[in-house]
Amino acid sequence: MKGAIVYKPDSKDLAEEVREFVNANGFHAEVVSKSKDLEQYDYIIVIGGDGTILRVLQSVKNCPPIFAINTGRVGLLTHCEPYEYKDVLIKALNSFEVEEFMRLSCVVDGNEVLALNEFAVLCSVPAKLVEMTVYVDDVKVESLRCDGMLVSTPIGSTAYALSTGGPIIDPYLNSILIVPVAPFKLGWKPWVVKDDRVIRLEFDRSVFIVADGQKRFKHEQSVEITKSNHPARFFKISHRLKRTVEKLRNIC
Amino acid sequence: MKGAIVYKPDSKDLAEEVREFVNANGFHAEVVSKSKDLEQYDYIIVIGGDGTILRVLQSVKNCPPIFAINTGRVGLLTHCEPYEYKDVLIKALNSFEVEEFMRLSCVVDGNEVLALNEFAVLCSVPAKLVEMTVYVDDVKVESLRCDGMLVSTPIGSTAYALSTGGPIIDPYLNSILIVPVAPFKLGWKPWVVKDDRVIRLEFDRSVFIVADGQKRFKHEQSVEITKSNHPARFFKISHRLKRTVEKLRNIC
Amino acid sequence: MKGAIVYKPDSKDLAEEVREFVNANGFHAEVVSKSKDLEQYDYIIVIGGDGTILRVLQSVKNCPPIFAINTGRVGLLTHCEPYEYKDVLIKALNSFEVEEFMRLSCVVDGNEVLALNEFAVLCSVPAKLVEMTVYVDDVKVESLRCDGMLVSTPIGSTAYALSTGGPIIDPYLNSILIVPVAPFKLGWKPWVVKDDRVIRLEFDRSVFIVADGQKRFKHEQSVEITKSNHPARFFKISHRLKRTVEKLRNIC
Amino acid sequence: MKGAIVYKPDSKDLAEEVREFVNANGFHAEVVSKSKDLEQYDYIIVIGGDGTILRVLQSVKNCPPIFAINTGRVGLLTHCEPYEYKDVLIKALNSFEVEEFMRLSCVVDGNEVLALNEFAVLCSVPAKLVEMTVYVDDVKVESLRCDGMLVSTPIGSTAYALSTGGPIIDPYLNSILIVPVAPFKLGWKPWVVKDDRVIRLEFDRSVFIVADGQKRFKHEQSVEITKSNHPARFFKISHRLKRTVEKLRNIC
Repeated sequence: MKGAIVYKPDSKDLAEEVREFVNANGFHAEVVSKSKDLEQYDYIIVIGGDGTILRVLQSVKNCPPIFAINTGRVGLLTHCEPYEYKDVLIKALNSFEVEEFMRLSCVVDGNEVLALNEFAVLCSVPAKLVEMTVYVDDVKVESLRCDGMLVSTPIGSTAYALSTGGPIIDPYLNSILIVPVAPFKLGWKPWVVKDDRVIRLEFDRSVFIVADGQKRFKHEQSVEITKSNHPARFFKISHRLKRTVEKLRNIC
Repeated sequence: MKGAIVYKPDSKDLAEEVREFVNANGFHAEVVSKSKDLEQYDYIIVIGGDGTILRVLQSVKNCPPIFAINTGRVGLLTHCEPYEYKDVLIKALNSFEVEEFMRLSCVVDGNEVLALNEFAVLCSVPAKLVEMTVYVDDVKVESLRCDGMLVSTPIGSTAYALSTGGPIIDPYLNSILIVPVAPFKLGWKPWVVKDDRVIRLEFDRSVFIVADGQKRFKHEQSVEITKSNHPARFFKISHRLKRTVEKLRNIC
Repeated sequence: MKGAIVYKPDSKDLAEEVREFVNANGFHAEVVSKSKDLEQYDYIIVIGGDGTILRVLQSVKNCPPIFAINTGRVGLLTHCEPYEYKDVLIKALNSFEVEEFMRLSCVVDGNEVLALNEFAVLCSVPAKLVEMTVYVDDVKVESLRCDGMLVSTPIGSTAYALSTGGPIIDPYLNSILIVPVAPFKLGWKPWVVKDDRVIRLEFDRSVFIVADGQKRFKHEQSVEITKSNHPARFFKISHRLKRTVEKLRNIC
Repeated sequence: MKGAIVYKPDSKDLAEEVREFVNANGFHAEVVSKSKDLEQYDYIIVIGGDGTILRVLQSVKNCPPIFAINTGRVGLLTHCEPYEYKDVLIKALNSFEVEEFMRLSCVVDGNEVLALNEFAVLCSVPAKLVEMTVYVDDVKVESLRCDGMLVSTPIGSTAYALSTGGPIIDPYLNSILIVPVAPFKLGWKPWVVKDDRVIRLEFDRSVFIVADGQKRFKHEQSVEITKSNHPARFFKISHRLKRTVEKLRNIC
């Protein structure tokens, strides 16, 4: 069993400290400076915020379980704060209980792209409107002009979708959230649908498809988004709902 | 197999017509003027709107499958409009395909109360605030002063909860929606949680618990709301999502 | 110059203390236990919260200037907290700078009713819908089914209207805010109009007209709401916008 | 008195027709293919939609009165539809009644920029957050991370600000509307303030300042937005409120 330690630039010292601590406690982990070949490891320790975790996830299809120590702002996806990592991390490595969370998938230019939080499909020109039509299993549920459209997971309901009028979704409720960005329409609603639905978006001009705020693809006409076969894996947080509520207090 | 035909006051003639039509086509159904003993029937034909269906549901724990012909305003729960009922109804009775939709349950004064759409827990004095705390499986997720709180099913997401900022939820997504009525708070969100969660509301003054807008109970202190073991049953609508979208156009 | 001191039940001791303090400083004020004949006084000192102020305002047409010491929850209309009242109050009485804020007016059963915050026009049956049509200077701007409709002042934009999706309005912007309560409609918007507009509401069933949460009148058919000729008067708060922002932090 | 006729590319034929019609009726107007030197004309006839009008307005500081025939989608700023232009236009030219509507002003790179609808201050990288602080007359009213911030006129309340949660504002209510785009915060509100307030936005990374969706400037640190001394001028619409309501029905 070998772990990778990934860190965001300002957290290098803590990464080194964690490495020493982990190895001194009978585990084997090494600091990795680039997010490649991460699938070869048995687990990943992330020192950073949600952004660092999302960056790591962009590089792994078969996701080793992730443990994250929050050195970012909100850290909704993280397991603990730096001051308390020792206890929590050792317990996690010993029990090795793992949770899976769905990722979304779409194909752009022939390649599968994954997202843990959301795909943001945004007009490629700022402050311009794109006409967007939303199909759920071939049923047209919405058509409007807007800045863009988000297709989000439950985990992502506390990320970008929180900013655009979406509800907060139980991280354990298997579902897909669809919510527009700045809809130029009086009447619209977020939609929460079953996770086995196929979401298709059609648009009348070129868009950026942004995966988890990390990767950006220019795209034309339409895109199909579905649940991926490659979930993200995290060390289990036994009181995840409670932790989410506490973290949300930071963005009141 | 014997069916009951229930109607809202202004639809008595159509009820009589439907009775004749059904019996002329080899089925046996009778017009029932009061909503009692409805559990004894093998199916129920409702001539009315959503209100009539909800009233019928208040009187049945073990719910015979319902077929509804819309003579109300919106009719989100109905199967067809009066002009088209003959084809649709005969097909439904022949195939007898049935869908179940969850109901919510709570105990008031020692009696179980059921709701297909929602429980509205409202301050018993109009234009006064009640302090409301929401627990999901004992995790306190919200605390605010408001006119009231809704605990809704997915089916109910297009009823009262639509008026108070809730999302639209896939009728087939097993979940519970929690959304405040007129929250005197800047930051709040609807919550959508798994259907096996226990929702507990605590309040600092007396409230009305209103089940589907049909029955009203004065209540103190707290109430626990869970998924009921007694779902509602409806004749299957093969394109339910599409019908929901079409019906929503009437309330744009 | 004679002042009245009005208090909410739990603030009697502070009222007595304020009386002694004010009179010891060369002003003449007396504690008044009932809100009658208040117009005869030259100013009113309120020991209480927004509710107490609103109750006082229901009893005065020609409003003596009000100074309020907050012993309530939020106290958006108050001038100071109990710990700091001495300095602030003496300064106010010495300079006697007064601000006027518009009140709204409507006629119910032949009597004029006033409101500083808002008129809430609510369906008289909880959890039932009323069909409401809104006219602004005879232009029909909205028609929908809802729990009710608020017609609010700028000062009232941080009261009930805050709970129902209204914006926050500059207390010095002469305007009227119209916003529905729980609208059963996908597309609707709050409206902010000039203060000399005539607002007429029409409804298809009986409503309660609630003035500032203080007085309630059962009413039928329609009501016309306009700016009143009897504004409320308050001792000037030089940094009112700042105080509003600070107070709003308490309801995050 | 000499008028300019400006058209959007697909409306050239109608522009020519209007020119002939106007000149045949005793007025003198010429078709102008580029939006320059428009200030020299006594009035401007626009054949197009809101976008065309906004483009024209970017080129005039001292604005000749504008009359607009709608060949666009919504046309909230236009005076009539093509089928009815003859009557409406001749009446307008004969009476020459003019209305002024405030524009907003800000200084970018030493140059004054004007906007009739709004300034959109947007993060320069799509799907990234900018930390934005809003000051109204030096009072900090809001601080949050978001996609951007809109500072809008009442006329602009039915444009971009309608998409981001703003209220609809009476076109004759002198005021400024401030509303965030996709705020990553649970508790926020649109603000409507007096039109003589100074709005200052501070941001922690580079933004695009977009004037009426027409002109885009990259900018750093902060920007101050105030009411401009150069209003837009339009031929009077006697039932403007009614026309606005009717036009809004097209974006339900």
